Amino acid sequence: MNLKRIGNQTVVFANPPVILSSYSVVGPKEGQGPLSKTFSKVMQDNLNGNKSWEVAESKMLEEALQGAVKQSKVKTEELDYMLAGDLLNQIISANFAARTMGFPFIGIYGACSTMALSMAVGSMLIDGQFARNVLVGVSSHHDTAERQYRSPTEQGSQRAMSAQWTVTGAGSVVLSQSGTGPRITAATIGRVLDYGEKDVNNMGAAMAPAVADTILNHMKDLNRTPGDYDLIVSGDLGQVGLHLAKEVLKRSGMETANQFNDCGVMIYDSSQDVHAGGSGCACSAVVFAGEIMQKLISKQYQRVLLVGSGSLHSPTSALQGESIPGVGHAVVIEA
Amino acid sequence: MNLKRIGNQTVVFANPPVILSSYSVVGPKEGQGPLSKTFSKVMQDNLNGNKSWEVAESKMLEEALQGAVKQSKVKTEELDYMLAGDLLNQIISANFAARTMGFPFIGIYGACSTMALSMAVGSMLIDGQFARNVLVGVSSHHDTAERQYRSPTEQGSQRAMSAQWTVTGAGSVVLSQSGTGPRITAATIGRVLDYGEKDVNNMGAAMAPAVADTILNHMKDLNRTPGDYDLIVSGDLGQVGLHLAKEVLKRSGMETANQFNDCGVMIYDSSQDVHAGGSGCACSAVVFAGEIMQKLISKQYQRVLLVGSGSLHSPTSALQGESIPGVGHAVVIEA
Repeated sequence: MNLKRIGNQTVVFANPPVILSSYSVVGPKEGQGPLSKTFSKVMQDNLNGNKSWEVAESKMLEEALQGAVKQSKVKTEELDYMLAGDLLNQIISANFAARTMGFPFIGIYGACSTMALSMAVGSMLIDGQFARNVLVGVSSHHDTAERQYRSPTEQGSQRAMSAQWTVTGAGSVVLSQSGTGPRITAATIGRVLDYGEKDVNNMGAAMAPAVADTILNHMKDLNRTPGDYDLIVSGDLGQVGLHLAKEVLKRSGMETANQFNDCGVMIYDSSQDVHAGGSGCACSAVVFAGEIMQKLISKQYQRVLLVGSGSLHSPTSALQGESIPGVGHAVVIEA
Repeated sequence: MNLKRIGNQTVVFANPPVILSSYSVVGPKEGQGPLSKTFSKVMQDNLNGNKSWEVAESKMLEEALQGAVKQSKVKTEELDYMLAGDLLNQIISANFAARTMGFPFIGIYGACSTMALSMAVGSMLIDGQFARNVLVGVSSHHDTAERQYRSPTEQGSQRAMSAQWTVTGAGSVVLSQSGTGPRITAATIGRVLDYGEKDVNNMGAAMAPAVADTILNHMKDLNRTPGDYDLIVSGDLGQVGLHLAKEVLKRSGMETANQFNDCGVMIYDSSQDVHAGGSGCACSAVVFAGEIMQKLISKQYQRVLLVGSGSLHSPTSALQGESIPGVGHAVVIEA
């Protein structure tokens, strides 16, 4: 059988799936950040007329999914699968959105790496001839994440300087076997690595080794260097994690300059009091769906490596004294 | 492009992946049930020497994964992906097992349907030529589920008669592009349905409509009838859900007789005080890895439809008054 694998971890698509459309919904804080103009919709407040933050998150995801479907002009009967996930227990935002959307549903959990992971798996389903079109989407919400992972949101606990701010938002793309748009040409699924970091307020440090590992293996598998990409962008390493990932790469003999950036660093500016940057499933999803897609479409970027970064802990595992494993999943998108 | 889809929801594999091996680990209660002799290993107690039930669950999953890998005789460098999930928040059992195993990892969340869903997606990755071999595994644990979803385990709350008992166990299979063993020939990914059931102590009722919907669509897509299967087996509908699913099918004009059974009904006997039967990711996984695989290998079954059933709620969504969406994912396994 003619395998589409190259090296240890990378697959190269025979008929690279097209990203037909992308849609993003964000909260007001994200709407005040430097990428403000790139989002499809900015909500007025984090509840957006709903009775709870959890309902608001799920509705926000629905809105992003519906926005991407509408923009893609794909008929709903030709959308074969929906792949989605989020950070809430039992990925409840995605489950409820899947109930509304009505498509055959594959739930994905990769923590904050879920967008890149779902884009990779969705591309495999299309290139493997199992689907004509696949709908992908993820969400996160500052206030639902805060009370689930940390303290009651209203408590307003003092945050560590290495802590990141969970992005309130949802991002979605429609992948297709044909059409016009940027294409997903390759994917590198990551291994779970754990360097012993136990500080849940420093997820950047927990994820950095896995992100660096995936970038190294990706480049090795495809015999490429960082210079072959206009942008290498991690999902939500934040300031601390991005610095560490660059350092791990440097010590492994791989120099990355300005082309290695992080969605969590890009989405807020320093005046917004988010400390180490943004995080959450939506962080990479809304930056990709807006800023990065727009620059791919305008050909300002020819080739981008999106590396979703996931911190695979739970509040229970942290309380039980376990360290925090990380993972990085990469997809190559070409103009 | 030559699509491998038939009808609305079903894919038929061009080169059906082989199930090279299967391995199951269960707790003592499951080891005292009617399927006792079919499991690979029965633990002496639910902690199995670990400091917490959560650690015990993850270690049990590791053991099942390692057992399946060993039995498959596949070299670890030829295992291209691991797909796994569980019921704990942030699928922490699977994440920690993935850290130990070291394979590129795709986290799946389908609640108790995760085994069938992972087998379906894993088969697509192999048949789509993205992988030579895929390791699939799931776990659940009575004591970790009890305290996460319901009440402190030690409290020993009175259980409703419609409630099910979460299976303590882990099941794993190795799927391969070639070799000897039963083959996965088709898969039907389910839609998320919600008929308004809000009773978290009656998950069978919440899941029954979705399971029936998947069976109906599967038969329609492939132009088959229940008589084309030696066994149609749902994951964990339990006594209540199985009865309801049969009723939904009957009212839709589809008669199922003794060939429609449920892993949650099969795994315990009436003397074991489990009320409506077993549940949990492991319920279908260990019954499939043991009993069903053995009867496929001995050709007692020629063709089986395994329909994983998932209840897609969270304790938070239930407390917020939301109803419980269900899903059913089906795979066809042939001797």
